[in-house]
Amino acid sequence: FLGLQALAQSAPLPSWNDGPAKQAILDFVRETTDPASPKFVPAAERIATFDQDGTLWVEQPMYTQVIFCLAKVPAVVAKRPDLKDVEPFRTVLSGNRAAIAKLSTADLEKIVAATLSGMSVEAFRAEAEAWIATAKHPKFGRLYTDLTYLPMQEVLSHLRANGYKTFIVTGGGQDFVRAYAQRVYGIPPEQVVGTAGGTKFGYGKDGRPVLTKEPRLLLNDNFAGKPEGIHLMIGRRPNAAFGNSTGDRQMLEYTRAGTGARLAMLVLHDDATREFAYGPAQGLPDSKVGTFPQPLFDEAKAKGWTVISMKSDWKRIFAFEP
Amino acid sequence: FLGLQALAQSAPLPSWNDGPAKQAILDFVRETTDPASPKFVPAAERIATFDQDGTLWVEQPMYTQVIFCLAKVPAVVAKRPDLKDVEPFRTVLSGNRAAIAKLSTADLEKIVAATLSGMSVEAFRAEAEAWIATAKHPKFGRLYTDLTYLPMQEVLSHLRANGYKTFIVTGGGQDFVRAYAQRVYGIPPEQVVGTAGGTKFGYGKDGRPVLTKEPRLLLNDNFAGKPEGIHLMIGRRPNAAFGNSTGDRQMLEYTRAGTGARLAMLVLHDDATREFAYGPAQGLPDSKVGTFPQPLFDEAKAKGWTVISMKSDWKRIFAFEP
Ligand SMILES: [Ca+2]
Ligand SMILES: [Ca+2]
Repeated sequence: FLGLQALAQSAPLPSWNDGPAKQAILDFVRETTDPASPKFVPAAERIATFDQDGTLWVEQPMYTQVIFCLAKVPAVVAKRPDLKDVEPFRTVLSGNRAAIAKLSTADLEKIVAATLSGMSVEAFRAEAEAWIATAKHPKFGRLYTDLTYLPMQEVLSHLRANGYKTFIVTGGGQDFVRAYAQRVYGIPPEQVVGTAGGTKFGYGKDGRPVLTKEPRLLLNDNFAGKPEGIHLMIGRRPNAAFGNSTGDRQMLEYTRAGTGARLAMLVLHDDATREFAYGPAQGLPDSKVGTFPQPLFDEAKAKGWTVISMKSDWKRIFAFEP
Repeated sequence: FLGLQALAQSAPLPSWNDGPAKQAILDFVRETTDPASPKFVPAAERIATFDQDGTLWVEQPMYTQVIFCLAKVPAVVAKRPDLKDVEPFRTVLSGNRAAIAKLSTADLEKIVAATLSGMSVEAFRAEAEAWIATAKHPKFGRLYTDLTYLPMQEVLSHLRANGYKTFIVTGGGQDFVRAYAQRVYGIPPEQVVGTAGGTKFGYGKDGRPVLTKEPRLLLNDNFAGKPEGIHLMIGRRPNAAFGNSTGDRQMLEYTRAGTGARLAMLVLHDDATREFAYGPAQGLPDSKVGTFPQPLFDEAKAKGWTVISMKSDWKRIFAFEP
């Protein structure tokens, strides 16, 4: 056992190629955990935050939660027939894939609000657990939960092995991600910060207390909402933050504005063969899902953040690869 | 060391008198942590929530945070002279203690909103830390942080020693309590759930990111807001919950509505000699601070919650007692 532990400690991040990205992580962990280092951080204060979609798992061609919400539309309309002829529900029910792909962010937000509310928190969790246990990705033909990035799972493990408390800070729905975060990432519900609606406490017909999910938005955990959500839910500035798009910019800026060693990393999807290629930074194809524009790339370079190239920094992307 | 550990385990809760309250805690911990017990809870799922004012520390004659806010009024009015002649600020500035004591909840909320917003989260934290480090209680003449209940500190320790993650769930301000919760209770900021205002992410004159506290209320963590706040911030139902007033009723109901062993306890302040006596349950004097009415007492008895009598269940109340 001690031999294995020593081995694990001597060779962390095995799915990473040697290079500046891997080195930045190793250096950060060493500097902040060595009591002799001027950048030492006490164990109780070590906080690392991770965006989920596009940072910990695949987000193309559409965010997993959006696919979950779209799949729920028929059941929601069955309970609320008044929505049948109302957009964007009519388009979703039509099954017209091209039209569905063109829905605006505002349309998707209407669908999310309608499908993620109106049930007890337990009923929602059971639905989310059941769906994620069987739904498969259109390109890979695998469970979404198999599509987490092995190199990032290794970062989570390496940080935790060195006393860091790891949090997900996602623009996705907090309750949705909490349904599988422990099993998939080893991250408990209370360490998942996400976009959150309100709940309403009341009593069921049997007199038992019930928390019902409401469409009312409490926290839009994206862009400036990420540092605001971090303050609300965690209450301190992260030492390290990982993202992949414009929605993570403010979280990384906030993280780096702290004193001492502060790690800020962005995953660049530049591997069309093994995953997807999109930016539009660095001449990659544009995308409205997980947009990584050139100004964000330039800001990263100017401020000493590290951009991770999936193509050159990651030896393996998925655990299922040979 | 092993001998000390064995001793600690053989005699938990030393400041408690033997009786049903102490026994309820010991039984709950044993039943939920013994793998052979039908009520066993896996270590990763053990959650306990504690109200603060009146449950973990003294709340009479006025909530500590309110005293902090009142003390800040002159500084706030210096920056915003328009408030000088506006109620309730005028009353506070008058220094008339009787009039200040009569301020309504709505007045106090105005004072809280004005004094807890408009500065960066770091500036607020520094103010709160500085104040709590020196302010003293009018009756005891001691730091507020010396006025935590030793028996409850022992409950926190006993639960943590048995794998429970302990949370504060307070109607008080989340950022205020976070300023000292680690030092005073061993509870880190991310495990403090409280009444919370929004923050706004922006940039200072030097271009550095700043989170500014806003008066906008995000979570009123009292009454039904407690289970709602628990779902928002923790994401699962507690196994054990501790409170002392009507503001905790829904949290205890929600906790007990779960399956398996669920501990619900209420502290009754019935010791005028060593602390304060108020209810009005059980014929104790009425109080608008920390109200514990007879119907709450009756609900506790009917539902198998445990009422802790400070007078008879606690051998010592404060660590400074001889
Ligand atoms: Ca993302
Ligand atoms: Ca209380």
